[in-house]
Amino acid sequence: MQKNEILNRIAALRKLMIDNQIDAYVITGSDPHMSEYTPENWKTRQWISGFTGSFGKVLITLDRALLWTDTRYFLQANDELAGTGIVIMKERVPDAIPIEEWITANLGAGTTVGVDGYTLSAHDKAQFESKITAKGLLFRNDIDLVSVLWSKRPTLPISQIYEHEPIFAGKSRKEKIELVRSVLKAQGLHSTVISQLDDVAWLFNLRSDEIQYEPVFAAYSYIELDEAHLFIDQSKVSTDVRISLEDDSIKIHSYDSFITFLSRIHDQKIQFDPIRCNSMLINPITKSNSLELSVSITSLLKSVKDDKEIRNIKSAHIKDGAALVNSIFWIIQSVNKDVITEVSVGHKLNEFRGRQPLYKGESFHPIVSFGDHGAIVHYHATHQTDRIIKADNILLIDSGGQYLDGTTDITRTITMGSVTVQQKEDFTFCLKAHIALATAIFPIGTKGYSLDAITRKPLWDRGMNYGHGTGHGVGYFLSVHEGPMSIRAEFNNEPIREGHLLSNEPAIYREGEYGIRTENVILCKKYKSSEFGDFLCFETLSLCPIDRNLISLELLTKNEIDWINDYHSTVYNEVSPLITDRDTLEWLSLQCEPLS
Amino acid sequence: MQKNEILNRIAALRKLMIDNQIDAYVITGSDPHMSEYTPENWKTRQWISGFTGSFGKVLITLDRALLWTDTRYFLQANDELAGTGIVIMKERVPDAIPIEEWITANLGAGTTVGVDGYTLSAHDKAQFESKITAKGLLFRNDIDLVSVLWSKRPTLPISQIYEHEPIFAGKSRKEKIELVRSVLKAQGLHSTVISQLDDVAWLFNLRSDEIQYEPVFAAYSYIELDEAHLFIDQSKVSTDVRISLEDDSIKIHSYDSFITFLSRIHDQKIQFDPIRCNSMLINPITKSNSLELSVSITSLLKSVKDDKEIRNIKSAHIKDGAALVNSIFWIIQSVNKDVITEVSVGHKLNEFRGRQPLYKGESFHPIVSFGDHGAIVHYHATHQTDRIIKADNILLIDSGGQYLDGTTDITRTITMGSVTVQQKEDFTFCLKAHIALATAIFPIGTKGYSLDAITRKPLWDRGMNYGHGTGHGVGYFLSVHEGPMSIRAEFNNEPIREGHLLSNEPAIYREGEYGIRTENVILCKKYKSSEFGDFLCFETLSLCPIDRNLISLELLTKNEIDWINDYHSTVYNEVSPLITDRDTLEWLSLQCEPLS
Repeated sequence: MQKNEILNRIAALRKLMIDNQIDAYVITGSDPHMSEYTPENWKTRQWISGFTGSFGKVLITLDRALLWTDTRYFLQANDELAGTGIVIMKERVPDAIPIEEWITANLGAGTTVGVDGYTLSAHDKAQFESKITAKGLLFRNDIDLVSVLWSKRPTLPISQIYEHEPIFAGKSRKEKIELVRSVLKAQGLHSTVISQLDDVAWLFNLRSDEIQYEPVFAAYSYIELDEAHLFIDQSKVSTDVRISLEDDSIKIHSYDSFITFLSRIHDQKIQFDPIRCNSMLINPITKSNSLELSVSITSLLKSVKDDKEIRNIKSAHIKDGAALVNSIFWIIQSVNKDVITEVSVGHKLNEFRGRQPLYKGESFHPIVSFGDHGAIVHYHATHQTDRIIKADNILLIDSGGQYLDGTTDITRTITMGSVTVQQKEDFTFCLKAHIALATAIFPIGTKGYSLDAITRKPLWDRGMNYGHGTGHGVGYFLSVHEGPMSIRAEFNNEPIREGHLLSNEPAIYREGEYGIRTENVILCKKYKSSEFGDFLCFETLSLCPIDRNLISLELLTKNEIDWINDYHSTVYNEVSPLITDRDTLEWLSLQCEPLS
Repeated sequence: MQKNEILNRIAALRKLMIDNQIDAYVITGSDPHMSEYTPENWKTRQWISGFTGSFGKVLITLDRALLWTDTRYFLQANDELAGTGIVIMKERVPDAIPIEEWITANLGAGTTVGVDGYTLSAHDKAQFESKITAKGLLFRNDIDLVSVLWSKRPTLPISQIYEHEPIFAGKSRKEKIELVRSVLKAQGLHSTVISQLDDVAWLFNLRSDEIQYEPVFAAYSYIELDEAHLFIDQSKVSTDVRISLEDDSIKIHSYDSFITFLSRIHDQKIQFDPIRCNSMLINPITKSNSLELSVSITSLLKSVKDDKEIRNIKSAHIKDGAALVNSIFWIIQSVNKDVITEVSVGHKLNEFRGRQPLYKGESFHPIVSFGDHGAIVHYHATHQTDRIIKADNILLIDSGGQYLDGTTDITRTITMGSVTVQQKEDFTFCLKAHIALATAIFPIGTKGYSLDAITRKPLWDRGMNYGHGTGHGVGYFLSVHEGPMSIRAEFNNEPIREGHLLSNEPAIYREGEYGIRTENVILCKKYKSSEFGDFLCFETLSLCPIDRNLISLELLTKNEIDWINDYHSTVYNEVSPLITDRDTLEWLSLQCEPLS
């Protein structure tokens, strides 16, 4: 990216701001669907600043330019913003100054702050607006200046959507739509606005390859008690798919007609999720209808996997386990005889996964971090940072795949040579935390924050901790990060329910030394009912050996050792039939022998 | 209570409602300070219904009368409301119908719902009003019909307030007022409204005997950057106290002048706690000032005990431990030779505590429950329910004292004869939960809900649980239940801080059989700092043996046994010097011997 080009873009934006009487313009970089992964045409933050991180907000005033981002990206932003005059504002640090606070402190009453309302959730817009206007500033969210300036803007990717076929999908789309309607009926509602892309894909059993890492496509949906609507670029819909959708009584509209469609609805009770819908979607319906502001019905339904989905997900995890076993054996074999690097291991993981049936691609950019890189939580190896992997430190590999029958996400920390006492202790305590969650039993209604504490206890007991959440929801051939539930210290009112698929990923990071994380996907299941109520537990679905060379047996209880042995026995039973290489099989067999 | 009298009161209220065009009238039974314990003159719920429980709301319409209360009081309400026509509405049960929902479902748009705004917090009033008015009903909170009708209403109790003397109090009131002001300054605020009675008593180092169980007095306070105001019935203030307060530049006003005083404040930024202040206090200041709605500054400051308070609190707990040791030994000696009952044991506890220096009375009504009564969580022995205590089941004793140097709250479950395997197992698992919290280590910023999960884990692992919180804050010669922090599964955003005093009271209840609870007061302290952050831990302050006859050693880990042995060693060291009876001392010594 030429720095001059960034400077020109900012100058052009300022000119347009003056023409439109805007004193400060916010570029969030979010897309209209509040997506985690967004196509190139919606990467406005990157366009205006050159910053390629996944988290940040840019503020342009007539004489200042600033980027808010968090610790993950301080170094990267520093590098990418050099020469642009854009100042980095640190978020999620003590004494951080939120963007609203900076604006009200630096711009006087009567000045106008603008933002493209499609790039801000309805919830964030309301918060932002109230903070800004409380200080006498004016706020507009109806002004998209980037579209005017971005002359070579890529078009929305066009890729044919395809059916998530009945053998893979759980319920049919007719059944899912009826489920949504039964919730609407129970709550006395007329309809629901669906904007999150994985909700739309899940509901209609449709997928696409238009976005990397997540098989979703740009679309909206609106489900009423008696009608079902899909808003999508018509060129993405083949005749076969169209006929199939129409057979299921689904009305197909153009993507761009959604706001107009909404503006024609009157006197209805409509469910609306202000976190998952952009702020422009609420305008057309807010005055002439009664809105029920709550978590998206489809997000809640989608999070509970049904028996067929679970059966398929288990199959995907067996294949993914085999791919990871092949990859790790290859790494161990290669490390001392070939030059292998963080980037090349990332490619190799994808190659091994690609040999498994129904594989569609990575579920996120793999994190392959050697030695002290492992302590950088969201490390992303680039050609600048890439490092040769050797046997003298530990390697952290966090990766996942998209299969037609499931989405995976697994982290293993492995050693290829000798280990220090501290590395073994850290690995073992991190493993105790992992086992604490894997074996947790808890009453129905328990929230993720309670499980987060139970996971961390073995680390807290040693005065240790990790600075991120313990677990996120996982989609079914959809987003690897799926809500609405989570396992984190922060408040999240959604209980963990039977059928929820979550990650279990406690960690220990030693800055400048190494990072350790053991992550499996776990499924919430019934445990038992008693006079004290109904209890739930987890089943671990990810299947790959945990490095026994990093385990200090004397730090484990008998129950913990039993869990590891049971787990390794399951890994061998499920994965070994898929291992075709004799040496790899022998290695797997050794890795899965009981510890004692 | 004559049922006729209740019927007459309801009839008179209805007449007055018609005169005032009120279709439904809510009687919350709360007092203007949102107190847990309230004097007779503010017991309006009891006056209108005859119901003496501590939790409930009465709704009177022109043709219906209803009481909302929770599981603790279903039996009692059934008994006390018989013949009054008042219907019991169950709260905190599945499918409970909230009072607002009942009102909007049963009264049409345009009808008027009234309540005395002094008996509803500003927060609850806002919630209630928005739910009612959303359905087109009208709402008034400026109408106190009970005062008009209650002819023989007791007057507010008049008792001389007294100084919590410097040897007992922590900081001086001048220092405390300066602390409040430093918070006001840091937040750019002008003043704070203080309404909760223990906040007022704490801030001014004043106490009173006017209310049972809690040494507070009816008063408000208002602290500005340069002035400090106390609103109190002048007849409660002796000349000495008045001079002392005036020496500290505190302006004394009559209790009844508070609203008028507030209405004269304009153009200021005022801190206001909508949970702890009644809804009438917000009216005079809401329009002409800017309100900062947040947790009371004094509640937050008061919750963190200083070194002097902690020193005194420890002393109070040693005395309280001695009183409880004397009581338990007396129970064990008496159970087979005399008739002792739940009520008589309650009296005896008070008698033994009364022999300790600086004792001022009970901190709450003692819960002495034998056998299956123990499974009724808030069991309150009356002459109707009272039971003779025998050696064939277990006895639960939850009691506490108010001392000039501290407030105590302790529960012991004891056996006086043989025990079943299930009783021992239940007791031991409950003890494991208790030890889990007592030994917890956690990073600064941890919320009570995280600690709640860590406490429950040993029970959850067995598919067991208890239906109440794990811990509440404890005051310093103030309320035995003190906020704003708590250890419960429910969300509470206040972290547990160094200097917080909390109860640790996990339990197991077997309906129709027995109840088990082991409760100690714990103090939050620094643990250590590491590269992973700053960590906190607890010190247990309550001192009384845990019944070794109920412990199954084989269910405990070595660390748990070590904790019990260390605890018993501390109990013996601290409490034995206060035991004057030779037999009691011998018993204590045996109880405190190491388990092995």
